[in-house]
Amino acid sequence: MKKQSALHAVATFALTIAAFAFSAPASAQFQKPEDAVKFRQSALTVIANQFGRIGAMANGRAPFDAKVAQDSAHVVATLSTLPWAGFVANTESVKSRAKPEIWKEAGKFKEASDKFVAEAAKLEAAAKTGNLDAIKTAFGAVGGSCKACHDAFRTE
Amino acid sequence: MKKQSALHAVATFALTIAAFAFSAPASAQFQKPEDAVKFRQSALTVIANQFGRIGAMANGRAPFDAKVAQDSAHVVATLSTLPWAGFVANTESVKSRAKPEIWKEAGKFKEASDKFVAEAAKLEAAAKTGNLDAIKTAFGAVGGSCKACHDAFRTE
Repeated sequence: MKKQSALHAVATFALTIAAFAFSAPASAQFQKPEDAVKFRQSALTVIANQFGRIGAMANGRAPFDAKVAQDSAHVVATLSTLPWAGFVANTESVKSRAKPEIWKEAGKFKEASDKFVAEAAKLEAAAKTGNLDAIKTAFGAVGGSCKACHDAFRTE
Repeated sequence: MKKQSALHAVATFALTIAAFAFSAPASAQFQKPEDAVKFRQSALTVIANQFGRIGAMANGRAPFDAKVAQDSAHVVATLSTLPWAGFVANTESVKSRAKPEIWKEAGKFKEASDKFVAEAAKLEAAAKTGNLDAIKTAFGAVGGSCKACHDAFRTE
């Protein structure tokens, strides 16, 4: 009973930190379309940040630190599957840089995001080896998958 | 040479997706204070979302799915160490809910974030067992660590 009410207090608190539908099934992650947009943009912001850290090393503009590369690649790979759940159909009318093609050509969008997920996994594997050349190659492939998707599905 | 220029193209592209200081060392992650704020808020948004998914199951408002709980707990644990780098001293003047106590009582803030990191690791361990009661207990402890830090260091 005591445990239940402590859990309830935490759940109530959690509701205030995340605009979150606790009454919805776990698959329906977002209470409002705006929450879905905020979520996908947040995940992509963290991905871009961590990918950028690897990029600085891949391009020799920061000293190579194998541990940083491995940690950042792990974050990128872990988050790579997440943003796509935020491209819910009902977010099309929310202001963002998402093109209507995301929903009109859903199959192609899925292919593009799957490609990124696959390349991010390869980057993590490369980072685990600690070999900078392997990291550079995998970094290039991930960057290519980001760019291809942005070119097709994001406005400038 | 060809590889170098492909990498250069990706780096240039990466600069456009993340406002990122490639010329800075990997430790200096942010080009502008606003980027640091955006980064920490983004990481915390993703954490809150994934923590909320576990919460829905811990509170019986969503059916328990051990795989979802494990994946979400892994995201929370992986991201748990990240937001704090965004609380750079030069962000104090950027509009956000961060209280000045974050910088005035840096030791206490560090303790509070370390506590969250530790509890998040325990939540991931609990989720790996697939035992819902263990997850509930660990969920409560993580939520408590979020709340303690928000109460002390975040405005309403």
